[in-house]
Amino acid sequence: MKYQRDFRDKGLSKLGDSLANLMYSLALSEYLGQPTGERVPNASLALALELSGLKGLVPPRTDKHGKGDIAEAVIAYAWLEGEISIEEGAAILRKNLSEGVAHFTRKKEVIGEAFAELFKVIKDRLEIRPG
Amino acid sequence: MKYQRDFRDKGLSKLGDSLANLMYSLALSEYLGQPTGERVPNASLALALELSGLKGLVPPRTDKHGKGDIAEAVIAYAWLEGEISIEEGAAILRKNLSEGVAHFTRKKEVIGEAFAELFKVIKDRLEIRPG
Repeated sequence: MKYQRDFRDKGLSKLGDSLANLMYSLALSEYLGQPTGERVPNASLALALELSGLKGLVPPRTDKHGKGDIAEAVIAYAWLEGEISIEEGAAILRKNLSEGVAHFTRKKEVIGEAFAELFKVIKDRLEIRPG
Repeated sequence: MKYQRDFRDKGLSKLGDSLANLMYSLALSEYLGQPTGERVPNASLALALELSGLKGLVPPRTDKHGKGDIAEAVIAYAWLEGEISIEEGAAILRKNLSEGVAHFTRKKEVIGEAFAELFKVIKDRLEIRPG
């Protein structure tokens, strides 16, 4: 499969969407002790980029959806490069989930905080130096 | 994680949704030779149940969305039981994709035919005898 390190690549985003949703669904299933699944909100992915120091990857005037796309592309690239597995990604998210995930008002933030920890690991392994 | 063999379980469907979308996105990425991703249409999953002889799992008067949910629950259960991996699922789908996947009018059918092959394998391994 041909791909480049271009986090604005729409194809990478689309693949990353599936990867992010599965990692999070597995983490949430483990956290709750029973199978479940959910899509990751773009607001959470945007927050995660910010908290993990990856805001520099986002061009000016990019909306929430566009930030989500960049975050998903980062996940897809890291996975394609063999730097993060689905299992490890899910485990990092699981470890960083807190009970706020069940509260409507706190939920997006809690998911964002968990993804920030995943992005810190990816940032380190891919040696991303945005800015 | 606690779960039962109940293909009408909504939690299993939700987890299966993520698994099915990732398996298909990986298959499509390999088929096209570049990263991409897409959600699997419920119409394709409904067709796949029919073609694989699993129609008996679907209660009467179940709509397309409900059929998709049952199909997703089957995938999640098989994966949780260790009977199918993401990689093998993607490989089966990939092998059974045809060029119709790029044609708007044929697409849902082509995806359904590929998933039918996946369900035949799962049906056999889980020894599902619907009817």
